[in-house]
Amino acid sequence: MKLINYIFLLLIFLSNAACAQTHPNMILTKSGVDKVAAHKNPVMFDRVLDETRIQVDLAISEGIMVPIPKDMGGGYTHEKHKNNYFNMQSAGALYQITGEEKYAAYIKEMLLEYTAMYPNLPPHPTNRSYAVGKIFWQCLNDANWMVYTSQAYDAIYNYLSVAERKKIENEFLKPYANYLSIGNPKYFNRVHNHSTWGNAAVGMMALAMDDDKLLQRALYGLDLKDVDELAKDNDGGFIYDKDQAKAGFFAQIDYSFSPDGYYGEGPYYQRYAMLPFMVFAQALNNKKPELKIFEYRDSILIKAVKSLLNQTNQSGEFFPINDAQKGMSIYPNSVVTAVNVAYNASLDEEFLNAARRQGTVLLDQGGWELAKVIESSSARTFVNKSMQFTDGYNGDEGGLGILRAGDPENQSTVVFKYTSQGLGHGHYDKLGYLMYDGSTEVMQDYGAARWVNIDQKGGGRYLKENNTWAKQTIAHNTLVVDQKSHFGGEYDIANLHHSDPVFFNTNNPDAQTAGARELNAYPGVEMNRILVLWEDDYFANPVLIDYFSADTKESHDYDMPYQFAGQIMSQNFDYKTEMPTTMGDGHGYQHLYKEATAKAGDNIQMNWFKDSKFYTLTTLSEVGDDIILARVGANDPEFNLRRDALLIHRKENAKSPRFLSVIENHGTYSRVTERPVDPYSKIASVKITNENNQVVTFNIRAKDGNSWSIEVNKSSGEVKIINK
Amino acid sequence: MKLINYIFLLLIFLSNAACAQTHPNMILTKSGVDKVAAHKNPVMFDRVLDETRIQVDLAISEGIMVPIPKDMGGGYTHEKHKNNYFNMQSAGALYQITGEEKYAAYIKEMLLEYTAMYPNLPPHPTNRSYAVGKIFWQCLNDANWMVYTSQAYDAIYNYLSVAERKKIENEFLKPYANYLSIGNPKYFNRVHNHSTWGNAAVGMMALAMDDDKLLQRALYGLDLKDVDELAKDNDGGFIYDKDQAKAGFFAQIDYSFSPDGYYGEGPYYQRYAMLPFMVFAQALNNKKPELKIFEYRDSILIKAVKSLLNQTNQSGEFFPINDAQKGMSIYPNSVVTAVNVAYNASLDEEFLNAARRQGTVLLDQGGWELAKVIESSSARTFVNKSMQFTDGYNGDEGGLGILRAGDPENQSTVVFKYTSQGLGHGHYDKLGYLMYDGSTEVMQDYGAARWVNIDQKGGGRYLKENNTWAKQTIAHNTLVVDQKSHFGGEYDIANLHHSDPVFFNTNNPDAQTAGARELNAYPGVEMNRILVLWEDDYFANPVLIDYFSADTKESHDYDMPYQFAGQIMSQNFDYKTEMPTTMGDGHGYQHLYKEATAKAGDNIQMNWFKDSKFYTLTTLSEVGDDIILARVGANDPEFNLRRDALLIHRKENAKSPRFLSVIENHGTYSRVTERPVDPYSKIASVKITNENNQVVTFNIRAKDGNSWSIEVNKSSGEVKIINK
Repeated sequence: MKLINYIFLLLIFLSNAACAQTHPNMILTKSGVDKVAAHKNPVMFDRVLDETRIQVDLAISEGIMVPIPKDMGGGYTHEKHKNNYFNMQSAGALYQITGEEKYAAYIKEMLLEYTAMYPNLPPHPTNRSYAVGKIFWQCLNDANWMVYTSQAYDAIYNYLSVAERKKIENEFLKPYANYLSIGNPKYFNRVHNHSTWGNAAVGMMALAMDDDKLLQRALYGLDLKDVDELAKDNDGGFIYDKDQAKAGFFAQIDYSFSPDGYYGEGPYYQRYAMLPFMVFAQALNNKKPELKIFEYRDSILIKAVKSLLNQTNQSGEFFPINDAQKGMSIYPNSVVTAVNVAYNASLDEEFLNAARRQGTVLLDQGGWELAKVIESSSARTFVNKSMQFTDGYNGDEGGLGILRAGDPENQSTVVFKYTSQGLGHGHYDKLGYLMYDGSTEVMQDYGAARWVNIDQKGGGRYLKENNTWAKQTIAHNTLVVDQKSHFGGEYDIANLHHSDPVFFNTNNPDAQTAGARELNAYPGVEMNRILVLWEDDYFANPVLIDYFSADTKESHDYDMPYQFAGQIMSQNFDYKTEMPTTMGDGHGYQHLYKEATAKAGDNIQMNWFKDSKFYTLTTLSEVGDDIILARVGANDPEFNLRRDALLIHRKENAKSPRFLSVIENHGTYSRVTERPVDPYSKIASVKITNENNQVVTFNIRAKDGNSWSIEVNKSSGEVKIINK
Repeated sequence: MKLINYIFLLLIFLSNAACAQTHPNMILTKSGVDKVAAHKNPVMFDRVLDETRIQVDLAISEGIMVPIPKDMGGGYTHEKHKNNYFNMQSAGALYQITGEEKYAAYIKEMLLEYTAMYPNLPPHPTNRSYAVGKIFWQCLNDANWMVYTSQAYDAIYNYLSVAERKKIENEFLKPYANYLSIGNPKYFNRVHNHSTWGNAAVGMMALAMDDDKLLQRALYGLDLKDVDELAKDNDGGFIYDKDQAKAGFFAQIDYSFSPDGYYGEGPYYQRYAMLPFMVFAQALNNKKPELKIFEYRDSILIKAVKSLLNQTNQSGEFFPINDAQKGMSIYPNSVVTAVNVAYNASLDEEFLNAARRQGTVLLDQGGWELAKVIESSSARTFVNKSMQFTDGYNGDEGGLGILRAGDPENQSTVVFKYTSQGLGHGHYDKLGYLMYDGSTEVMQDYGAARWVNIDQKGGGRYLKENNTWAKQTIAHNTLVVDQKSHFGGEYDIANLHHSDPVFFNTNNPDAQTAGARELNAYPGVEMNRILVLWEDDYFANPVLIDYFSADTKESHDYDMPYQFAGQIMSQNFDYKTEMPTTMGDGHGYQHLYKEATAKAGDNIQMNWFKDSKFYTLTTLSEVGDDIILARVGANDPEFNLRRDALLIHRKENAKSPRFLSVIENHGTYSRVTERPVDPYSKIASVKITNENNQVVTFNIRAKDGNSWSIEVNKSSGEVKIINK
C-alpha cells in the first residue's frame, strides 16, 4: 500500500473519529444549528419556537419529578414520565437553538434523577404486557421514552462532563438499552410497529452515546435462535412470522412495507409507526451517511410516507380500514415528523402539500428549511390521484386500490381493499370498499370499536365488540356467505391468504376501474369484484358502478351489506318496520337489530341523506330477494357501539349470484336557504345485459330515457360506454 | 284662515305630490342611489354587486318564463315564479345602481307577461291551503312575490311610460293586491307571520303605485266583522285571537311581539317573519316618514331584531324551541335583511356584530352604508349577555330566560322556557330548558320533526311525528307527570295559560339565576324550577345547578328526562340492557325504546361524550328510583325520527318530589393527539340540606373533599355560597 493510501485512510479515520464525537449530530446537527443561528427564522418556525419555549419554561418552573413507576396509561406516573421525555427533547432543541443553558441544565438534572432511580428499578409492577417495561407498563412506552431522550442527550452531550456522561451512560442508559433489547428479545426481535420503536430507541441511544456495538444490535437484531417461535402478543398477533429470517431496524424496513410503501396494518397504524422509522433514519443519515438509509430498498421510507399521505380523504383523515379510530389524520406530531424528515431527505415538492396543511414544523434544522420553503414557495398544490398500492414484501400479496375523480376540492374517492390480512389488526373484509364524497362517508367502514386512551371505555384499549362486531365481515361493504365472516373469522387461517388484483386501470379518466379476486375467504366460492368510477357530464358527480360476482359450487345464502349510515329518505320498496330483533348469534349478526324488512322487485333503490347531501343506491335484484334495514347496537351491554344504519340485500339458497350496484352522489341541502338541490336520483334501473369470460356488460337507464351500455373487460378493466 | 296658511298647506300638498312621484323611494331611494354612485363602493358591496349581476345576467340569458301556475312548493311552476320575483328585485337594484337599461327592460317584459296572464287566472288549482293563492298554492307565497316585485316596480317606475304603468297596475297589480286582501279576508286580517307577509305585500305595492287607499288597508286591515271568528289554519292554529280588535300591519307589530321584542312562536319563525316587517318598515320610513315607524311602540322593530339575534348559540344558530328546524341561523337572507334595515334605522353598533358574521349586505344604500362601516370600523365585538325576554303583548305572559357565562369564545348558555304556548307552533314544555357548551347541545331540544322543503319527507311539511313526538313534553327537558304531556297535549287548553317568571337575577356574575313557576300544566300540581349558572375557579367551565320542585295534592308518577343525545361513557348505577320495548302508547312515549334499566342509589351520576367533549350529570335520587336509558325511534314507520338517547329519572307514586341536578362540562378529547383532558367529573354527590318558603339550600360535594353550601332565595334568586 502506498503512503498516500495510508494517509488517506488515516484521514478518514480521523474525520470519522472527529465526526463521531461531534454533537449534536442526530436530528439536530452542529452545521444545521449554525445555519439556523445565522439567518432570520421563518414565521412558522418562530411560532413553534415560541410555543415550545412556553411549554418547557412551564415544565422547568414546575420542577423535576421522576416518580417510581406504578401506573398504566392515563395514570399519574405514566403521564409524568411521558411529559418528561417530551420536555427533555424540546429542551434539547431549545438549548441548541437559543444557546440558553437553563435548558441543558434541566435535561442534565432530569437524567441524573433517572440515573439515581434506575439501578434499583424492578420491571414495571403492573405485569400486564407480553413485554413488561421498566418506567412504563410496556416496553413500547419505554422505547418512546428513549427515542425522545436520546435526542436530548445528544443535544447536551458536550455540555456534560466526561464523568457525568460516564455515570449516566453506565448506570442508566446502557443498562436500559440492554433491557429493551437483550432483556426482551421477543419484543426487540419482532417485526412489528412496537419493535420498530424498540430498534429505533436502542439505535438512537447508541448513536447519541457513540456505541457502535449497540447500534449494530439495533440495526440487525439479536440472534434469532434465542426465542420461542409463534408466541402471540396482547393483540393476538404472532410475535414472529414463520418465515422471518432477520430482525432489527433493517428487517423492519424490509418487512413492514410493500415495494410501494404500503403498510400491512393500514394507515392508522402506519402513522404511529412512521415516527421511529423516520427519526432513526434521519439520525442515521446524519451520523452514518454511508448507510444511505433513505435510498435503501429503492427509497422505501420516502415511498412509505407518500403512501401514508395518499391514504386520506379530503380532510386529511386516514381511511379507517382494519383497526383504526376514525378521525385520525395527517395532523398529529408523528405525521408532521414523517413529512419534515421525508421532505428534507428527498426535497420532493409533493410533501409541501401536507406540510402546508399541517401548518407546523419540527423544531430542528429540517423544520427550519421546510418552513422557509413554505414561506417562500409558490409551488403548485398536488391533488391526490388514483393510485394502487401493492401489499406484501414482494408486492405480490394483493393490494389497495384508490380511485379518485371529480372536483379536486371535493373528490369522489373509492377505496378498494384486496390486501393480505393486515396482521393482528386486520379485519375480515376481502374485496370490501369504502366510498367518500369529499370527507363524507358515503359507504363507511365502521372502524375499530375502541376509544383510544379514554379510560371509561375499557381503559382505552380494544373493546370486546372490536372482535365481535368491528372485525367481522358484515360490518363492512363486501359479500357475506351463509352469515359467516371470511375465513370463518379465524385469524390463523386468514393470515395465510390474500386477495389478488386483476386490474387497476386509470387510462380512461372518465371510467377508472379496479378489479380483484378472492379465492380463499369461503371454500368453494370464487369472488370477483369490479369497481368503475364513472364520470359523465350527465351526472353532477362521479358515479360508482360496483359489480360483485360469486361463482359457487353449491347453493348458499348471501348478504350484501351497504353501510350508508345515514337517514333514509325514500325507496322503491314497501318496507314494514317491526320491533327490533337481533339478526343472529355470531359473526357480527348478534350486534344487528332488524328494524324493517321488504321484498325486492327487479331493482332495489334507496335514497338517503347524510351531512346535508343526498345519495342514491340502485342495485339489481331478483324479484323476491329480501331487503333488511338493520341497525348496529344489539347485544351491546355497555353501549360501546354506534347506532349506525345499514341495508342488507339478501339472496337465499342460490348459486353463483351477481350484484350490480350504482351509487349516485346527486344532491345537496342548505340549512341557510332550506332549499334542496337535486334531491332525487337520475337513474331508473340497472341490469346486466351480457356476461362471458372476457367481458361483462351493464345497462344503466335514466328516468329521462337516457340509457348507457357499459362493457367492462374482465382482464384489463378497459371500458366501452355507449349512450343510447 | 290666513293666506299664509293656505300657502303653507299648498306647499305641503305640492311637496307631498312631488314626493309621491319620486321613484325609487322604497328600499332604494333617489338620494341613496346618487350617494352610492358618487363614492367608491366598499369591497363587500362590490362583491354582492358582482354576484347579483352574474345571477341576473344568467336569468336574462335564459329568457323570461311565466308559466301557468300548477305546482306546489318544489314543483316547476312554483320554483320558476319564485325565481322570477328574486330576479326582478335584483334586476331593479342593478338598474338603479348600474344604470344599465337591460335590467329595467327585463322587469318590464316580465311584468307585461304577468299582466297578460293574470286576468284569466283562476285561484291556484291545488286548492290545498286555507288561503289559496293565484300564482302559488297559498297566498303566503303570492305575498312573497309581491314584497319582492313591488321593489322592482318602484325601481323601474320612471322607466315605464304612463300607459304601461296604467296597464300593469289596472290589469294586474291592483286586482292582485285586492285578491290578497279583500279576496282573502281570513288571510289578510289575521295576526300571524303569514299575514304579515300579506300586509307588507299589499302595503309595499301600494307605496310603489302611490295608492294611499290600498296603503291604509295594509296598515289597518279590513273591517273585522266580515269574517268568521276562530277558524283554524293548516297548522291547527286559530286564525283570530278571541280578543283581537285590530288588523293590518300595525296590529301585526302590536300583537306579534312582547315589549322586549320576543316573538311567541320562537326565533325560527321570527327569522322568517322579520323580513316583511323590516322591508315594509324601511319603505314606510322612506316614503311616509311621518309615521315614524321605527319609533313605533318604543322602537319595537329594532328590539325584535335584537331579540332574534340574542336567541342564538355560539354558531349563530337559533335555539330550536317550539317548531324549529335545527341549524337555522343568522345567515339566511331574511336575517341579513333584518340586520341591514335595523342597523340603518338605529345606527346601533350592536348590529355590526351580526353583519360582520353574515359577511354580506343588501344591494341597496343601506347595505352600502353597512359595508362601509364594517370596512372602516374598529368597533368592538359584542358578547351575548344573559337576558330575559318577557312574552305576551303586555310582557306579562311568562318569558324566556337566557343565562350565559364562561369563555366568550365558547359560552355556556342555558335557555329557560316559561313562555306562553307559542300559538300553533308551540311545544308542551313548560319550565323546560336547553343547555349549550358553545355550539354543542349538552341538553337538547329535539326541535321539529320535519325536513323543510325536502319532498321525500311528506313534501317538506310537518310530519305526523311532529305532533306525536316533537311537541310532547317527554321530548324536552322538563317534568312529565303520570306520563302525560302538559295540558294533556291539548292546544286549546295550553293556549289559555302561560308560566310565570319568579326571578331573573344576574347581579352576581358567578351565580346567575332564573326561577319560574307553572300552575296549570297539571291540575293540582305546582311546578317550580330554579336554574343557577355557577362559575367557580374550581371548575373548568360554568356548572349548571337545576332545582325542580313539584308540589302536589295527590300522589303521582314522575319522569324527569335528560336529553343528552350522546354516548354514555360511565355511570354510578348498574344497568342492564334489554331488547328494546316501547315505553307507552301516547304522549310521545310510544316513540321511545327502553334500552336499559337500573335502580338508583342516593345520587344518579352519568358521564357522556359528545362532539369530542365530556359531560357529567349528577342528580339527587331516592334509593330505588328508576333509571331508564331510552332512545327515540319506536313506532316510526317511515324512519322520520333521529335515534337520539335520553335518560329518564322516574319516581313512582310519590307526593311533591324534588329534583336537584348538576351538569358539568369538564373535559375534552383530541382526535389528533388522542389524549383526553379531564374525562371525569369532579363532583361526588349533591343533596338538598334545607328548604323552607324563603330559601332552598343545596350541598355539592367534590371527590377531593371540597364542599359547597349553596343557598338560593326563592323570591329574589339571590345566592349565598360557602365553600367548606
